[in-house]
Amino acid sequence: MPSDTAPRPVILTGDRTTGPLHLGHYVGSLRNRVALQATHAQYLLLADTQAMTDNAHDPERVRRNVLEVALDYLAVGIDPALSTICVQSALPALAELTLLYLNFVTVARLERNPTIKEEIQARGFGRDIPAGFLCYPVAQAADITAFKATLVPVGEDQAPLIEQTNELVRRLNRQAGRDLLPEAAALIPAIGRLPGVDGRGKMSKSRGNAVPLSASDAAIEAAVQRMYTDPDHLRASDPGRVEGNVVFTYLDAFDPDLQAVADLKAHYRRGGLGDMVLKRRLTGLLQATVTPIRERRAELARDPDLVMDILRTGSAKGRTLTEQTKREVTEGLGLFSL
Amino acid sequence: MPSDTAPRPVILTGDRTTGPLHLGHYVGSLRNRVALQATHAQYLLLADTQAMTDNAHDPERVRRNVLEVALDYLAVGIDPALSTICVQSALPALAELTLLYLNFVTVARLERNPTIKEEIQARGFGRDIPAGFLCYPVAQAADITAFKATLVPVGEDQAPLIEQTNELVRRLNRQAGRDLLPEAAALIPAIGRLPGVDGRGKMSKSRGNAVPLSASDAAIEAAVQRMYTDPDHLRASDPGRVEGNVVFTYLDAFDPDLQAVADLKAHYRRGGLGDMVLKRRLTGLLQATVTPIRERRAELARDPDLVMDILRTGSAKGRTLTEQTKREVTEGLGLFSL
Repeated sequence: MPSDTAPRPVILTGDRTTGPLHLGHYVGSLRNRVALQATHAQYLLLADTQAMTDNAHDPERVRRNVLEVALDYLAVGIDPALSTICVQSALPALAELTLLYLNFVTVARLERNPTIKEEIQARGFGRDIPAGFLCYPVAQAADITAFKATLVPVGEDQAPLIEQTNELVRRLNRQAGRDLLPEAAALIPAIGRLPGVDGRGKMSKSRGNAVPLSASDAAIEAAVQRMYTDPDHLRASDPGRVEGNVVFTYLDAFDPDLQAVADLKAHYRRGGLGDMVLKRRLTGLLQATVTPIRERRAELARDPDLVMDILRTGSAKGRTLTEQTKREVTEGLGLFSL
Repeated sequence: MPSDTAPRPVILTGDRTTGPLHLGHYVGSLRNRVALQATHAQYLLLADTQAMTDNAHDPERVRRNVLEVALDYLAVGIDPALSTICVQSALPALAELTLLYLNFVTVARLERNPTIKEEIQARGFGRDIPAGFLCYPVAQAADITAFKATLVPVGEDQAPLIEQTNELVRRLNRQAGRDLLPEAAALIPAIGRLPGVDGRGKMSKSRGNAVPLSASDAAIEAAVQRMYTDPDHLRASDPGRVEGNVVFTYLDAFDPDLQAVADLKAHYRRGGLGDMVLKRRLTGLLQATVTPIRERRAELARDPDLVMDILRTGSAKGRTLTEQTKREVTEGLGLFSL
């Protein structure tokens, strides 16, 4: 626990601005960020530059969602007095550090990165990988080090990106002959991303299985109604399976009454508990979570100038900090500066 | 010939800051730049960022040579009132545009670039190609377009780099639906780079066959003495070969009296003209070329503050211009701007 005088540990996190966030983000990251901002120096990056690495054909989408994601942040309770929200493209030092770091990584090393390999497959790039996409782990290393972040919340599948960052940090520190930059640790959340309502993979807007943070009560009810449970649990009296049952996964994520959830699981396993009872309970919980977010989001959306002001203030702070790190790195390596 | 009111055509040129320049640069580019600055808007880039793509292990060398190359420019007659000298690393918009453009080029396309393929071989990178090196044609496209240059002086072997730039320009213009950026044409000099004094390949400091622009009279004399001529021309009375004879190549480049050179060639071919006569003539010509450059260079080197001021003024002008282009490109593509 940091004392009042010790510097707070620095967290860098953020999202590609490719679409509004949803309940999967809420559980996997947003909720944690709201908790962490009280005890950490937390920077949130609206990653529009990184979003372009696989959306070069649709810059309008990337642009539009800068404000959408900012609204999501503020609506869930990110407090600009505690967290700093920056627009990635507004911080030129990130691009400058990326270009510098690219000289300290081989093409072969980037091609071996397991996260990149999987993502290239998932996006169906085949041989046509945009050079920016291959290089994005280096851009991420620039982001992390520019803020001197020591904690980076990531999904388990993204741990190789932190490893790539630390390789670069060690290489740069060795060459500078001193600790220019700190290494970072992955902060892997206890509860990962939610499955989609259909139970097929993670919740994702593009898969059409997501509940957005602006969902109405009716939309939430409909989403829970079509939620995947146990296909063999045909009558309420039958014993049911809890594992892989999306409704229970969501109850684990949202129900504050752990004892009640444990009792419901036991009841469901022995039989005599219908899906509808569970779904009604979950619907109520999700509506209670989303309603204040949706309302605050709608209120904020009516005042885009306020949101832009928050982004300007946060980006100015981020610009000063990242500019300072860039200067330290170029001077530490003995490069020219005017 | 541009009229007084028409905007002057824009040239972007420059040098990696990896070593002081030499007579090869003088003949192949510097001399042309001095002539072109009268009729063109000429920007000279001290390319320290690009120099890092194959000198990441030695940033000190890259740093030191920013000032050395600047001294060379000023000493040969580049006039800061006519040409704008910018330090590449002082223009963040170049890095920002590079990162953006990388999303519009595939890795496969970069690997097919013939100039890059040859340079990778020449540098012996093997499988360990720094990612920054593979990406440098995109950085060069960012440089060229950021200044909206339409003329880029390059050696014949570098024409593929201009082609890569124009591919990007067409792609970006197509996506923006209008001519955001102009295409550029390669300006291939009439006289290419000089051979080294040993006649083996181009003049190059690393090959030890170069005459630096700060060479003393004695050093020039010694360099000409060891200059490759016709190995079969053993006695003055023998007929000699002009082709591949480095002394004649240099006379072609430096002797203003074309008729005299033609007469000397004829005389040499028929026999009766000794190497020493030619070498004395060339020594005098090179000394006459280098002496004022060397003296002006030494004078400027005693006033590094003046040189730094010139770099600051030029870079400030370049920063404004490239920042403006970056804004036009991001807005033209419909990206976010704060």
